[in-house]
Amino acid sequence: MQNKKSITVVKIGGNIIDDAQELKHFLADFAKIDGLKVLVHGGGKSATKMAQSIGLVPQMIDGRRITDAAMLEVVVMIYAGQINKDIVAQLQANSANAMGFSGADGNLIQSDKRNHPTIDYGFVGDVKKVNTPLLATLLNTGIVPVFCAITHDKNGQLLNTNADTIASELAIALSEVFEVTLSYCFEKPGVLFDAEDDSSVIAKMNPALYAKLKAEKAIHSGMIPKLDNCFNSLSKGVQKIKIGHHKMLQDANAVCTIIEL
Amino acid sequence: MQNKKSITVVKIGGNIIDDAQELKHFLADFAKIDGLKVLVHGGGKSATKMAQSIGLVPQMIDGRRITDAAMLEVVVMIYAGQINKDIVAQLQANSANAMGFSGADGNLIQSDKRNHPTIDYGFVGDVKKVNTPLLATLLNTGIVPVFCAITHDKNGQLLNTNADTIASELAIALSEVFEVTLSYCFEKPGVLFDAEDDSSVIAKMNPALYAKLKAEKAIHSGMIPKLDNCFNSLSKGVQKIKIGHHKMLQDANAVCTIIEL
Repeated sequence: MQNKKSITVVKIGGNIIDDAQELKHFLADFAKIDGLKVLVHGGGKSATKMAQSIGLVPQMIDGRRITDAAMLEVVVMIYAGQINKDIVAQLQANSANAMGFSGADGNLIQSDKRNHPTIDYGFVGDVKKVNTPLLATLLNTGIVPVFCAITHDKNGQLLNTNADTIASELAIALSEVFEVTLSYCFEKPGVLFDAEDDSSVIAKMNPALYAKLKAEKAIHSGMIPKLDNCFNSLSKGVQKIKIGHHKMLQDANAVCTIIEL
Repeated sequence: MQNKKSITVVKIGGNIIDDAQELKHFLADFAKIDGLKVLVHGGGKSATKMAQSIGLVPQMIDGRRITDAAMLEVVVMIYAGQINKDIVAQLQANSANAMGFSGADGNLIQSDKRNHPTIDYGFVGDVKKVNTPLLATLLNTGIVPVFCAITHDKNGQLLNTNADTIASELAIALSEVFEVTLSYCFEKPGVLFDAEDDSSVIAKMNPALYAKLKAEKAIHSGMIPKLDNCFNSLSKGVQKIKIGHHKMLQDANAVCTIIEL
């Protein structure tokens, strides 16, 4: 096997974005990660707040949020504008040569508008293709890419896209060129045996344990698509996946969940 | 003199941004420009509209617009988010490998917060330094950079910055590496002898004619800083400057004003 450079792909969720102090600490830690790195950020609550303040009513069908044209404008403004540029400016102050991207920029992430048999999700995209050669060139130039959860269809249409999926698709694509560690950072120290007990972190999760915990209903709801996503990424070439608090980025001994095949 | 590659730096103003059809035509023409190119876009009216719709009152001191913290959030959202990403997605659909930037991205344009003896302009930046090596690398990779009028101070602060100045500073910086044509596109066919008569375009403007027309008050108000800017850019290495309607980008015989030393 050839010797690939290592890269860390980090995804942060809305809870970090919404807390200015926590975001500042996270970005200082992220900037210190050795070697190549990519950041993917979710949206947080500011898009919803902005939508409300300009009088938009969230469109829901069958309990699913729909991205209509007006809501798309808001998420593009907030995710690609306000949040992305704030993160880039802060990383620059931390000496990381950050560059902020939507999937439209450099055609880095092309999506298909979701075509569901019964629900019209509106302007929502499912990732189709990552422009790996350009992304690798940018990384090798010393750029630290910062992705928001907006992609495009290459026909002029921007699309709202799940940030977890973007992180996972970027990690899979980059695994052609690099040895990839994918880290999902959130407010908990890892995947928990008992959701109410932060000390019950599962240190290592593999498919056998996952099947057992699912059967016992110890793992359920939102964690299931997240873990399915993880096992899918590992099977497609991602080297290592960690889930936990962002302390794990700097402290190799910090508690977290390591997902493995 | 060594043989430099040619590059075209185009600045479009608010009147094109505000007219969806006109913008679409402009972007189709821009995408067809042969060789290396850079686009700089102003803001248009949507930042003011957004500010009004969320209840912000424009802050004015001595007739000058002030960018307070709330207004900065709005211009970042609109310029770097909504407008920039819409332009990038449309250029991608026109087969130009556009990538959208604020000055914070890749530290491409660093500014100093304006320090005026009597007026506090708020979060307004004056360009200090262009990251020419990185910009040249991106251009030579086939990227078409699209800049909005937001820069940063490298200490984590985003700053609102004049788009004409950004175009001029980028053109000057790029002239170290490339042979630069700078084109200011607006709604008029060029600089006019008579502001009321669109057929009175001044085909060639040089410093002697400029001095004469200023003395006769044939040229006044907003055109003076624009032309001062142009002569400054030419004296600092920019090869050629054109002012006129964007038709001039595709039609070499289109009427426009050529500024020369």
